[in-house]
Amino acid sequence: MKKLSALVLACAAAAVAAPAAAQFAKPEDAIKYRQSAMFLMQQNFGRVAAMASGRAPFDAKVASDSAAAAEFISRLPWAAYGEGTDKGRDNRAKPEIWSDKAKFNDYAEKMQAEMVKLNAAAKTGSLDTIKTAVGGVGGACKTCHDAFRKD
Amino acid sequence: MKKLSALVLACAAAAVAAPAAAQFAKPEDAIKYRQSAMFLMQQNFGRVAAMASGRAPFDAKVASDSAAAAEFISRLPWAAYGEGTDKGRDNRAKPEIWSDKAKFNDYAEKMQAEMVKLNAAAKTGSLDTIKTAVGGVGGACKTCHDAFRKD
Repeated sequence: MKKLSALVLACAAAAVAAPAAAQFAKPEDAIKYRQSAMFLMQQNFGRVAAMASGRAPFDAKVASDSAAAAEFISRLPWAAYGEGTDKGRDNRAKPEIWSDKAKFNDYAEKMQAEMVKLNAAAKTGSLDTIKTAVGGVGGACKTCHDAFRKD
Repeated sequence: MKKLSALVLACAAAAVAAPAAAQFAKPEDAIKYRQSAMFLMQQNFGRVAAMASGRAPFDAKVASDSAAAAEFISRLPWAAYGEGTDKGRDNRAKPEIWSDKAKFNDYAEKMQAEMVKLNAAAKTGSLDTIKTAVGGVGGACKTCHDAFRKD
């Protein structure tokens, strides 16, 4: 367990430190980029969450692969929220993303840290451990969506 | 260089062996999933390709991060080409994807192997090495698109 915690912290640091130096040709591309990343993340996380809630049979390998994908992709959307990317393609970003950037970044980093925990949990192969981590990710998603995503 | 080749081969094997046990609620989701993955891959690869061609200044860190993202994401689209996912959302998949699955899978695996090489090349920080690898990826993309993607 100590080993796991150390790994989680190490990975969390790496995730949070991931650079956001993406460049986009136009705002439309940035919006499509973050929407694509969110969709891939949601699909992969959803697969693990379905197992955690009993809606799908537990498959440790699928859970592990899906959590790894969700964790990796959780680092990607943020570079695509640059100034001027509120318009250009239909999207649900609230203006608060840019007016309260510190809070947005904080929520984004918390979600990434929860994804790192989920990835580590999925690697243990223990459904109970995964259930706890799924709750953490789900909470972090909801907190951010409630504050920064239009209905 | 020997070390690099060994790494490339090891990673290529891992990539090709990556499981495709994704499940989608409906064909529309599968199509959106592969389109999202292709877009993220194209954007990340495009960033490296722009440096390789001189259209963007070389930034070793951005190149390395972008290549790593492109390589990871290159494993994802294939699980979303299941039977019955030719329709459900506007898309450019040719019927040959399902009628000539062996060739499609072969092209998909070749592209992933080129992405592994690109990721390794980007980690060297050598623009010349990256240029060669960008050519390999670009060729693999084109070969598959020519055969399996509608104009």
